[in-house]
Amino acid sequence: MKLIRFGKFEEEQTGVIINDKRYSTADFGEDYDEKFFATNGIERLHQYIELNKNSLVEISPDIRLGSPIARPSKIICIGLNYALHAKETNAEIPEEPIIFFKSTTSLCGPNDQVVIPKNSKKTDWEVELAVIIGKKASYIEVDNALDYVAGYALHNDYSEREFQLERGGQWVKGKSCDTFAPLGPYLATKDEIKDPNNLNLWLKLNGRTVQNSTTSDFIFNVQSVVAYLSQFMTLLPGDIISTGTPSGVGLGMNPQVYLQPGDVIELGIEGLGTSTQTAIAYNSSL
Amino acid sequence: MKLIRFGKFEEEQTGVIINDKRYSTADFGEDYDEKFFATNGIERLHQYIELNKNSLVEISPDIRLGSPIARPSKIICIGLNYALHAKETNAEIPEEPIIFFKSTTSLCGPNDQVVIPKNSKKTDWEVELAVIIGKKASYIEVDNALDYVAGYALHNDYSEREFQLERGGQWVKGKSCDTFAPLGPYLATKDEIKDPNNLNLWLKLNGRTVQNSTTSDFIFNVQSVVAYLSQFMTLLPGDIISTGTPSGVGLGMNPQVYLQPGDVIELGIEGLGTSTQTAIAYNSSL
Repeated sequence: MKLIRFGKFEEEQTGVIINDKRYSTADFGEDYDEKFFATNGIERLHQYIELNKNSLVEISPDIRLGSPIARPSKIICIGLNYALHAKETNAEIPEEPIIFFKSTTSLCGPNDQVVIPKNSKKTDWEVELAVIIGKKASYIEVDNALDYVAGYALHNDYSEREFQLERGGQWVKGKSCDTFAPLGPYLATKDEIKDPNNLNLWLKLNGRTVQNSTTSDFIFNVQSVVAYLSQFMTLLPGDIISTGTPSGVGLGMNPQVYLQPGDVIELGIEGLGTSTQTAIAYNSSL
Repeated sequence: MKLIRFGKFEEEQTGVIINDKRYSTADFGEDYDEKFFATNGIERLHQYIELNKNSLVEISPDIRLGSPIARPSKIICIGLNYALHAKETNAEIPEEPIIFFKSTTSLCGPNDQVVIPKNSKKTDWEVELAVIIGKKASYIEVDNALDYVAGYALHNDYSEREFQLERGGQWVKGKSCDTFAPLGPYLATKDEIKDPNNLNLWLKLNGRTVQNSTTSDFIFNVQSVVAYLSQFMTLLPGDIISTGTPSGVGLGMNPQVYLQPGDVIELGIEGLGTSTQTAIAYNSSL
């Protein structure tokens, strides 16, 4: 299944995509949140759709999409998980996954405008495969780590490089601004993705391809990352794990390139759709 | 007011402390969560208590206390915010606040046992003043930052130093284990605390005082920290900001001292009560 949420920001309703058409599942009566995933919601939703497939209400392709999952307990990101990206940022290949968090307030819809923060000079992009956790995971093993995964989504891990790297320790400072985590268009349940460790992903800036790689270049694959994280914290249903970005970010260019108002960022992952964000300047009236 | 939550882990009910006695406010009908703080809950609760003060049900002092606030959107911590602590960890005095996150799954009651994680050799303590946000804050100024604060609580920011410092970048890895954020005994609403930047705080390990300082030694005071954070992320009602620890952690001792099963950690802050945790080894049956 392909799960979506649509409507106004923070007032989203639930839906699904079937044969490229969007349908409301608002009558199912549950948001796609921690409780939904924790209570076998994907299987229950599947049954609901089977029973109601002839009466689902189609919704307009023009309606805004929100994040396909409701606010999770955490967004965990993996740093430098593609060898070429580590090289472009002048970092060593890590021996263990690097973990950082994004504030969950950064989560937004896949095609929302990305707001260049106040006082930002170095807002950058990062196309990433996001993994959504399906059940509570603590000290799990690599061999069965995918049992704890609900599905996958496209994510752009926006990053303010000055905030991240030049303002005193710890990357979270440059990762957490509002609109810095557009997720979707949809959550693909894991049965839709044959191998999460073999997906092409790309990002274009104003029509020019700047990132173009495959998750087969992961230093640490999806099951390794999920099992590893669970050694340090409890993962909850609905939690988002963003698995790192390939080379081609603005920080790695010579000269470096950062977002300006009006820039258009398009990205996609094989099987997970595409998204487009337009950069705008921060405006206190927003 | 002094707000408490009591009962079994993740099934807590709400209450208040009045004249050192605990009373249930379960009939008020709201948990102390983001929505409560966002909808003027403290003022409404105050009115409820005034109206019902003769009929509140007293609860036993033996009942477990939970975190005085329900799971927040985030726990943000400030690193190295006391000059002496920065020195003991061989760190420079930061020019700007250092920010890191703890997973909200680490939150627990003030007197719960602290679980030394699997494979941990360096579990350490950090008594801290926690600030609880009362209303949504984005790009706020220092001068009115305290308007965005709901109150204060005692926090022990447990830290696994090997996970934090020796396992590859970013402190969150050593800050997020289950039971690593005992909060309380209570949330003191801000009217109870005359000056958050002038409070004694202390921590004892097995009866011996190891941390003993005052928040007047803050490098960045409460209002500076809240305003600063709001430049990088939106703070939500109920969010916890832990303001850093003074000197006297195990990492700073010579030789270093880390927790062993059976160790007893007691801590307190002037006006915010005391808490006690006993260290236990990780047990997969927990």
